[in-house]
Amino acid sequence: MPAFAAMFAQPAGSPIRELFPYLSQPGMISLAGGYPSPSLFDAEGLALAATQAMSSGPQALQYCATEGLPALREALAAQTRERGMQASAEQLLVTTGSQQAFDLLVRVLIEPGDTVLVEVPAYPATLQALRLAQARILPVPMDEHGLQTDALAELLRDLPLAQRPKLLYTVPNFSNPRGTLLAAQRREALVQLASSHGFWVVEDDPYGELCFDAADGSTPPMPTALRTLGDRLGAAVNPVVYLSSLSKTVAPALRVGWMLADGELLRRCTIAKQTVDLCTSPLAQMVSACYLQSGRYPATVQRARAEYQRRMQALVQGIASQLDGLVHCTPPAGGMFVWATFAQSIDPQALFDAAVSRQVLYVPGKAFFPESAQVHAMRLSFAAPEVPQIEQAVQRLAQAVAQVRR
Amino acid sequence: MPAFAAMFAQPAGSPIRELFPYLSQPGMISLAGGYPSPSLFDAEGLALAATQAMSSGPQALQYCATEGLPALREALAAQTRERGMQASAEQLLVTTGSQQAFDLLVRVLIEPGDTVLVEVPAYPATLQALRLAQARILPVPMDEHGLQTDALAELLRDLPLAQRPKLLYTVPNFSNPRGTLLAAQRREALVQLASSHGFWVVEDDPYGELCFDAADGSTPPMPTALRTLGDRLGAAVNPVVYLSSLSKTVAPALRVGWMLADGELLRRCTIAKQTVDLCTSPLAQMVSACYLQSGRYPATVQRARAEYQRRMQALVQGIASQLDGLVHCTPPAGGMFVWATFAQSIDPQALFDAAVSRQVLYVPGKAFFPESAQVHAMRLSFAAPEVPQIEQAVQRLAQAVAQVRR
Repeated sequence: MPAFAAMFAQPAGSPIRELFPYLSQPGMISLAGGYPSPSLFDAEGLALAATQAMSSGPQALQYCATEGLPALREALAAQTRERGMQASAEQLLVTTGSQQAFDLLVRVLIEPGDTVLVEVPAYPATLQALRLAQARILPVPMDEHGLQTDALAELLRDLPLAQRPKLLYTVPNFSNPRGTLLAAQRREALVQLASSHGFWVVEDDPYGELCFDAADGSTPPMPTALRTLGDRLGAAVNPVVYLSSLSKTVAPALRVGWMLADGELLRRCTIAKQTVDLCTSPLAQMVSACYLQSGRYPATVQRARAEYQRRMQALVQGIASQLDGLVHCTPPAGGMFVWATFAQSIDPQALFDAAVSRQVLYVPGKAFFPESAQVHAMRLSFAAPEVPQIEQAVQRLAQAVAQVRR
Repeated sequence: MPAFAAMFAQPAGSPIRELFPYLSQPGMISLAGGYPSPSLFDAEGLALAATQAMSSGPQALQYCATEGLPALREALAAQTRERGMQASAEQLLVTTGSQQAFDLLVRVLIEPGDTVLVEVPAYPATLQALRLAQARILPVPMDEHGLQTDALAELLRDLPLAQRPKLLYTVPNFSNPRGTLLAAQRREALVQLASSHGFWVVEDDPYGELCFDAADGSTPPMPTALRTLGDRLGAAVNPVVYLSSLSKTVAPALRVGWMLADGELLRRCTIAKQTVDLCTSPLAQMVSACYLQSGRYPATVQRARAEYQRRMQALVQGIASQLDGLVHCTPPAGGMFVWATFAQSIDPQALFDAAVSRQVLYVPGKAFFPESAQVHAMRLSFAAPEVPQIEQAVQRLAQAVAQVRR
């Protein structure tokens, strides 16, 4: 049979999906997945939305325009406006999860050898999509305040003209895997750099709604969206593309995400989507629209925020008490992830094996880097397991660390 | 802002989707879309399936494996076996419509300049996916018995080694747009050619279930699937990839298709799908699984077959009585389309304009060819409009033809 395309000759699968077989081992507690907690799904509200969708006539059963169902585009535009952005239904493309949105952007923009900036550590599927497109991935370092714009400015200054980047990928709100919130000043700096150097910024925001309360119980205001700062440039083209998703706040099973972007870019992504999957499941879109219209969304998000905060605290406190001095982490201000780094180098494979044998799972840090390297860190997700499980998982992890350090 | 990828510098949208604005004109009757009839949706059965899915626990709301929900893979494998093929759940990838399946195959197999054989006239989105991948599209001619394997054999014999095709795309059952059923002998010949020349055959089969009864009321047996003939080769690798979809028989809104393929090829398509959309909407998958398990599918398909046959007959009889001698068509033995060719050349644009002004819409023939050419043919879909509308549409079409011929 003929050869596969070069990038698929010996393709590596997702490093996170490779952990799947371990998940089914009896007694395993997983801090690995980026899955929301099933106990937080508003199953009743979604069942009502499904019933309503099915009785809304044939449009819930037929094909729809590639751009998305009008009712859902309106609802998602409204939600985007509530996050402080300007947004109309016409500026917005419904996608099959925000993952598809990024894939469409890559198709429309990237040719082999093109330079793409990525904050690192980064979501593995983003790195994989760029690898498969044969992009030249240029990592931008992060610290506890997110992407380091000073380092980015330096990097851009030193870049030969032929390597000018086409886009930059960032998760400003509670990044995956680091959990960082991009500082307000850096947001301004990033958008200025995009404008002056002429590259697109992909602002991937699946977690922004999942912000935690301050110690005094108040809800801190979220920093301004990059997209809004892009609008404020007042240029003909807003260089910021905003992506979001209902997967983390409503239900992953909908596979409903969206993209808010410049008209010319959006039009091309729409044309790409015509050949990719024609349209996102109109049934899932109609259920999503009915759910958002039902008014249940704010309470659902509020419940998730409170519960994820409890779980995050259990994880961080567990690390502080069981792994003090050995593992460092900054408590995230929202999202689903804690990035735990080791004070001293530790054999990543030996640790992973020890953890699995003690029935606890996490994602080894190297999964989040474009090039394979020794990374002395782990991504720990507190979203799916309940608090007692988290406590037990940290105990097991501490035992595994102790074993490997011996 | 940076340049778009070359293929997206000035991309053309789908020629069928360009007809959308006309659809909303009051009084328009459309023979253009490839949409199933909303009156044939089993809305009640699907509502029951949705209710069942929503009460099946968190798995209908969570992410699932990229390969698909186990329950749906089982149900689709069973359905594939009922079509005479060997199929197990493990050999099968659930896709976001069969359109995604083809797109994944293109990603995994095709590099710029690679040769791809396509039966022509062909589904425009197939041509577009290949164009965007910068494939070299080699058309294979068809007649009323489908793809001409003699012509294919000749074409292959004359092809330089460097242009050996990687795959061939065909819709053997009630092709889009020609409505042809690939003859049994040609099926054998095609699979032999694939085997001896070493290329993949994509057997796209969204319409095979929609076969019409013979004049005596009996249901003619369907010819053997290419995939089955591929199995019979007894080689290590079956060169036939079978694609199908629930869009034409259950509901397009599910966006559920599937691919049955050689393990190595399937594995790569699964890896590609990880970055494309992670998984097809698990909600839509669960609704599909519940629907297929409900036992209502056979009656639904039976109803569609009978109704589409009535509509096809109305269209063909209308053409015979109103456009006798001017337009030729072969009544299809199934599917959704009549391919109507003009006995004499006629200005395609003038005819289209005249038809639109008389409130009837069709897809001009040139949409189905890889290179733009004068094509004196139209694709007429009888699936969506009711019989009286079809009769009126043909009258309007006849008036438009008469006007342009004057």
